[in-house]
Amino acid sequence: MESKPYYAVIFTSTRTGGDNGYSEMALEMENLAKDQPGYLGMESAREEIGITISYWESLEAIGAWKRHTDHLVAQKKGIRDWYSKYHVRICRVEREYVFSK
Amino acid sequence: MESKPYYAVIFTSTRTGGDNGYSEMALEMENLAKDQPGYLGMESAREEIGITISYWESLEAIGAWKRHTDHLVAQKKGIRDWYSKYHVRICRVEREYVFSK
Repeated sequence: MESKPYYAVIFTSTRTGGDNGYSEMALEMENLAKDQPGYLGMESAREEIGITISYWESLEAIGAWKRHTDHLVAQKKGIRDWYSKYHVRICRVEREYVFSK
Repeated sequence: MESKPYYAVIFTSTRTGGDNGYSEMALEMENLAKDQPGYLGMESAREEIGITISYWESLEAIGAWKRHTDHLVAQKKGIRDWYSKYHVRICRVEREYVFSK
């Protein structure tokens, strides 16, 4: 099976203490991302660190989402209030395999 | 800053019920991965789904780890006992940025 290449944005983060409006904004951004052109999906889990991976059709789609006005507001608040550190990796998915019972 | 490209293996999974030796093997595989040539790091979190990302210097290093004898045993048990489904994505990290307070 050959399919079009696509991209993953790996966002790993360490939170500051307290919510400070984080949960509401996280949900809002998740819903907003889903409406963006080129959005393919999102997966996340948090324990000691949080990992959120979003999937996109192209680097252009990722760039447009990064520059989305509401998302820029969230990014600023993230730096100011919510994260002590984070790491963003833009990745091209080279190949994949799936197992399902 | 320009650095050598590297690779991420995104492993997302849904567990079956019960431990069935999973925790012990997961720790064993984490420790074994760290000893492999080309290993760069690992991050993981689990809530509804589990996400484990390992980072590697090359596709060759990823291939060698995938074929490691002890890892093959773990993969078989994973399919038989531990996972109802999983998705593996081999990705090339195209660019990245870091924030730290």
